[in-house]
Amino acid sequence: MEFKYARRMKHLQASEIREILKVTERPEIISFAGGLPAPELFPIEEIIRVNRIVLEEEGAKALQYTTTEGYTPLREWIASRMNSRLGTSFDFENILLTHGSQQALDLSGKVFLDEGDVVLCESPTYLAAISAFRAYGCEFVEVPTDNDGMIPDELERILASTEKVKIIYVIPDFQNPTGRTWSLERREHLVKAAIKHQVVVIEDNPYCELRFEGEALPSVKSFDQMGCVLCLGTFSKTFCPGYRIGWVAGDKRAIEKYVLVKQGADLQCNTIAQMEIAKYLELYDIDEHIDKIREVYRRRRDLTVKTMDEEFPPGVTFTRPQGGLFAWVELPMDVNARDVLIKSLEKNVAFVPGGSFFPNGGKENTFRINFSNMPEDRIIEGLKSLAEVLREFV
Amino acid sequence: MEFKYARRMKHLQASEIREILKVTERPEIISFAGGLPAPELFPIEEIIRVNRIVLEEEGAKALQYTTTEGYTPLREWIASRMNSRLGTSFDFENILLTHGSQQALDLSGKVFLDEGDVVLCESPTYLAAISAFRAYGCEFVEVPTDNDGMIPDELERILASTEKVKIIYVIPDFQNPTGRTWSLERREHLVKAAIKHQVVVIEDNPYCELRFEGEALPSVKSFDQMGCVLCLGTFSKTFCPGYRIGWVAGDKRAIEKYVLVKQGADLQCNTIAQMEIAKYLELYDIDEHIDKIREVYRRRRDLTVKTMDEEFPPGVTFTRPQGGLFAWVELPMDVNARDVLIKSLEKNVAFVPGGSFFPNGGKENTFRINFSNMPEDRIIEGLKSLAEVLREFV
Repeated sequence: MEFKYARRMKHLQASEIREILKVTERPEIISFAGGLPAPELFPIEEIIRVNRIVLEEEGAKALQYTTTEGYTPLREWIASRMNSRLGTSFDFENILLTHGSQQALDLSGKVFLDEGDVVLCESPTYLAAISAFRAYGCEFVEVPTDNDGMIPDELERILASTEKVKIIYVIPDFQNPTGRTWSLERREHLVKAAIKHQVVVIEDNPYCELRFEGEALPSVKSFDQMGCVLCLGTFSKTFCPGYRIGWVAGDKRAIEKYVLVKQGADLQCNTIAQMEIAKYLELYDIDEHIDKIREVYRRRRDLTVKTMDEEFPPGVTFTRPQGGLFAWVELPMDVNARDVLIKSLEKNVAFVPGGSFFPNGGKENTFRINFSNMPEDRIIEGLKSLAEVLREFV
Repeated sequence: MEFKYARRMKHLQASEIREILKVTERPEIISFAGGLPAPELFPIEEIIRVNRIVLEEEGAKALQYTTTEGYTPLREWIASRMNSRLGTSFDFENILLTHGSQQALDLSGKVFLDEGDVVLCESPTYLAAISAFRAYGCEFVEVPTDNDGMIPDELERILASTEKVKIIYVIPDFQNPTGRTWSLERREHLVKAAIKHQVVVIEDNPYCELRFEGEALPSVKSFDQMGCVLCLGTFSKTFCPGYRIGWVAGDKRAIEKYVLVKQGADLQCNTIAQMEIAKYLELYDIDEHIDKIREVYRRRRDLTVKTMDEEFPPGVTFTRPQGGLFAWVELPMDVNARDVLIKSLEKNVAFVPGGSFFPNGGKENTFRINFSNMPEDRIIEGLKSLAEVLREFV
């Protein structure tokens, strides 16, 4: 049987890089590749207790179907957390729980994008957002981006000259893949530009709670009086990714559309996961837990930056993120990071070459370093080996 | 801000019926509306134990990200179960775990359907499959269906005369909403017709383990030598729906495409849920558990059919399902089941009017009765009240 797939499948090819990186599952590999949290920080004992309490108290409910919108106490907690941390003014009806924030990206595409519509994004941008949106047949225009976010004049120029722009997609805090954080002025400008051109902003904010230094900045959403910004969040980086619980928050009219689309996509999130997280938040101090994560990641970031400073050859530059999980490395223009990866895997060190973070290709002289998943001794060992490889190329 | 939604959103409207049925959450309502399993049968104690074992033995893995394909031991179990029960010959690489079988429907649409493509379905068919596929802009052609499945001559005629047919969607065992089961001959014929016209068959089989009487029939897939049949399954009816673990099984080339699409849609299923179900299947006897469910549902089916026989007025007919969760009621042509529902809710009895199960509308003189969720005394009480209402209309 010759399968006749949908046209969109032509754009969704198995990533060559993903195949290469399958080796990172081997324990001898020092991996800077994934975006994995440090598993030694998962609150395992607490979760066993929370599971028992939820199932003993409300087992019949926790194992049954529930609403598409999600478990109300958890939606209430998220609204109140966002209001206190991000300057929003949400209630639980502004929140739809999603199967990780990846699903919120997919649903955003389904709600807003027709074939041929345009998504504006940072350059580079989050790899899996590209695949999520691309499945709806959109085009990407990369807005030139510096250390403070999208460059305002460039954004204005592109908005004025591009037809069918439906979404501006941004990760303002400790961006994936670059680790960069948008300035206050750029956040405010983004909202003004979006309102002027009547375009939706998707503010993807998985890392905002993981700031190691400096003052937290107000969210892009906090400047939005018109409801044009939709916010994505997740428990994957502050709690555990295995639960797959994220959310989309925004104007209730738009959230109603997301609910309709989620109903057809998978009915609802895992009921037990929603109730367990809510119970954990009730019984334990999540801030204490996040402090622990932040402290470990801060030390790993420090060590990563220090080791790259000391070991990487001249001509190689990198970002110094104030939080999150990632740093971004640029090599001289003529060096292809895929070639570096092949050599580096021979020394059991993995990372993700940067090319795939540019939806329209190019910039093969870049790569992403994750610093959250490896213990300190392996960070040093891995970056030293990587530096040796880099010296062969630079 | 006026949101500019994707064109598909025009076809995805909030269901009026769903709004009406929100009252079924009130405890005084006797609901024949949902497709909910009996919660008193959930193995709560066992799940508490399984959760503790999984988290104590492999907590760091269970709470972390995992592969898109899913947890290998669970995929192996599913392949072997299908092989022994459904006459298939799968190994774990034929199986992709999905967030409930609803997600497998959504992914099927995404893999195969372009705008304007045609899905052939039974008449009536599963409501949420209609919403899942419709999001990809397809049209539906309902194949005339009797108690044994799609009528072969009609199926042949439609296949020969319809362009752009991409999928034939069927629920061969104890269909939702009718409770009907396809005959052996019709299964075999369906596969021949699909191969002849090179069309994919989606065999949705959530209820096959819930047979109350008679011999199990081989699956549609068991007649397929060409790889054209993709099978959907779920743990929602035999274990617990709250976990949201289902699967799609089929030709490895097609499954690879599903994996790509799932990656962009939500990365992966809940890791803990996958590992807990696998551990439950290792430590406990699922057949013993399914026997219990089957016995309870069989008694409820018996009572439902008996009470409808005794109480429903002449002119009202209904199916006598050999398994599953649903029976299907037909009223005289001039009676609208929505009107019956309004009256029936005044007596605190709910069901789902049949109109929404026909993708192209019509047949408002039908409704679906779920018999799995209510205890026996409430089944009798509810059907007696419903019969009173019916006597006002018939």
